[in-house]
Amino acid sequence: MAEDFQGIATQFVAHYYNTFDTDRKALAGLYRENSMLTFQSAQCLGAAAITEKFVSLPFQTVKHQYSGADAQPTPNGGIIILVTGQLQVDGGEHPLGYSQAFQLTKDPSGQWFIFNDIFNLVLV
Amino acid sequence: MAEDFQGIATQFVAHYYNTFDTDRKALAGLYRENSMLTFQSAQCLGAAAITEKFVSLPFQTVKHQYSGADAQPTPNGGIIILVTGQLQVDGGEHPLGYSQAFQLTKDPSGQWFIFNDIFNLVLV
Repeated sequence: MAEDFQGIATQFVAHYYNTFDTDRKALAGLYRENSMLTFQSAQCLGAAAITEKFVSLPFQTVKHQYSGADAQPTPNGGIIILVTGQLQVDGGEHPLGYSQAFQLTKDPSGQWFIFNDIFNLVLV
Repeated sequence: MAEDFQGIATQFVAHYYNTFDTDRKALAGLYRENSMLTFQSAQCLGAAAITEKFVSLPFQTVKHQYSGADAQPTPNGGIIILVTGQLQVDGGEHPLGYSQAFQLTKDPSGQWFIFNDIFNLVLV
C-alpha cells in the first residue's frame, strides 16, 4: 500500500472528533449507506441512522481528548485505526475513558469514508 | 455475509486470551507472515516477530478480563473486533485498562487468522 495510511488516519481522527465536538450532525458526511456503528453494543446501519444516534446522545456538549491513533493497512486497501482517549460531557469534572476502532475504505469516487465504527467506554 | 461473525469473534477472543494467559508462544498459530501488530505504538510484522514481542514482555503471568467483544463484518469478508477490558500482571492488585482491535481474515486454506492487531493500555 503506497498511501500514507498513518498520515490519513491522523488527519481523519482529528477531523472526526473536531466535528463530533462542534457539530455532531455533520458527521453524516463521513459515513455511507453501508456504514456500520456499534455504540456501547447498540448497532446502527447507514449514515442516517448513525448520525441520528450521535445527535440523540443525552448531552449538550462533549470534548474528546486522545493521545494518539494507531493505524494499519487492511487487506482491501482500507485503514484500521484504534483510538484510546478520554471524553468530558457537559463540562463535567470526571473524564470517561473510551476506545474506538474504525475501518476506513474508499467510496466509488475515491473518497475515504467510515465503513466500520465500534465505540466503547472503558470503565476501570 | 452469511457467517455468524459475532459468534466467530466471541469464540476467537476467548481462545486468544486463554492462550495469551497460559502459553504466549502458542499465539504464533493465530498469525501469518503478513500479520501486523501495533503494541503500545511499537510495530511488528509477521507471526514470528509478533510472538517474540509477546514472549519478551516483562512479566511472568498475565490475566485478561474483558466485558465483551463487539464485532462487525468488513468489506473483504473479514471481521473487525473491539475488545475493552482489564489485565493484571504478576498477580498485582491494580488492574490496567486496555483496548485491542483485531481484524480477522481467512488464509487460503479457509482458516481464520489475525491480519490486524492493535493494542493499547488505557490510562485514565
